[in-house]
Amino acid sequence: QICAELFKHAQPKSMRGIKLLISAGPTREPLDPVRYISNRSSGKMGYSIAKAARQAGADVTLVSGPVNLPPPDDIDVISVETAQQMFAAVMNHATRCDIYIGAAAVADYRPARMQEHKIKKHMADSVIELSQNPDIIASVAGLSAKPFVVGFAAETDDLENYASQKLRDKNLDMIAANLVGQDEGGFDSERNALQVFWPGGGQHFAMTEKNHLAHQLLNLITEKFHEKNPAQNP
Amino acid sequence: QICAELFKHAQPKSMRGIKLLISAGPTREPLDPVRYISNRSSGKMGYSIAKAARQAGADVTLVSGPVNLPPPDDIDVISVETAQQMFAAVMNHATRCDIYIGAAAVADYRPARMQEHKIKKHMADSVIELSQNPDIIASVAGLSAKPFVVGFAAETDDLENYASQKLRDKNLDMIAANLVGQDEGGFDSERNALQVFWPGGGQHFAMTEKNHLAHQLLNLITEKFHEKNPAQNP
Repeated sequence: QICAELFKHAQPKSMRGIKLLISAGPTREPLDPVRYISNRSSGKMGYSIAKAARQAGADVTLVSGPVNLPPPDDIDVISVETAQQMFAAVMNHATRCDIYIGAAAVADYRPARMQEHKIKKHMADSVIELSQNPDIIASVAGLSAKPFVVGFAAETDDLENYASQKLRDKNLDMIAANLVGQDEGGFDSERNALQVFWPGGGQHFAMTEKNHLAHQLLNLITEKFHEKNPAQNP
Repeated sequence: QICAELFKHAQPKSMRGIKLLISAGPTREPLDPVRYISNRSSGKMGYSIAKAARQAGADVTLVSGPVNLPPPDDIDVISVETAQQMFAAVMNHATRCDIYIGAAAVADYRPARMQEHKIKKHMADSVIELSQNPDIIASVAGLSAKPFVVGFAAETDDLENYASQKLRDKNLDMIAANLVGQDEGGFDSERNALQVFWPGGGQHFAMTEKNHLAHQLLNLITEKFHEKNPAQNP
């Protein structure tokens, strides 16, 4: 029994026949042709999950913000820059996927006006006005025929509270939360730890390589996906 | 005579005995632990110049913002993130160099307040208040014992006007200007073209590989440096 439990998470589950859509990386919100607002996401966690899912046999589409990672083999990569572009690309594919994993660090806000010419110092205002970006993951989870939706939460504090609230508020099937701004793990690191929550349960994955963590997380996602969609269980 | 003129710019001039300080790459101005304002500088032009100067025999110190480039061999690299950090590192070395090349794309402004915790959507203001950053190149050019100061200007329009004005206003010895936001050349490209101005003159370098352009520009800088400092001419 103990061995069976251990094996359940050690052996990669097959994802053959599953269409996976994943968004990864940061978005860039332009202020003018050269300046932008962005965040520290490297895209490593999302790319690791995309590659692990392909290895497990899934049909993978990756919507990627600007990253410094090679495009993974045998995966359909759609490159975007802004949150609005990512929203359009994700919504264009969301109705045709079984699982959507929102691993991108999407900017909540963009500059209200994009200046066509480079802003000169003497012309600059001392404030940047912001407009709210579309909420991509809530929009996917709000579809009438919604896929199995997995969100991410990168927090600097009060991880469990923020993550459970996001799971509930956005009607997600699962959320993977990690602390950022620590000594190890998170955005710029090769390693990460995750606290995963779903309605009625949770699981902790200890600090490890992002590639290994991706396989562990995908096994859990595949298990919960089949629990929710028993007809599609091969 | 024609051959001699051609050779003058084809043959690398020796920079032995010259202490060169160069700043390169973008700066990142944090809004909170994960978000920041930055720009599209790849650091390629600055790194190419640093490497070419080392090859020509100069003693090179490189102050670099966050880039995705390997640190060049045999060059003292000081890594910084914000404009304020870059200012401190440059001013710390500026009085001990013969030539300073400001090739970094320094943010003119930073968010007035850096939030210690990640800003939540419901807490966010709809504006970002900004504070002005120190003007690094003007500060170096304002030193009583100033080095030979070379600036860069990346402009989306009216290149010659902005560049000549910057040369005059900031008391620079030379400025290398290029158009950005075009189909070819500039921030994300391997190639670039430069329009170079100094008090009383100018020269155009046609679109070419940044490595080649770096050698051409350094030859011109070395020539003008020796004209201004005949005692130091070996």
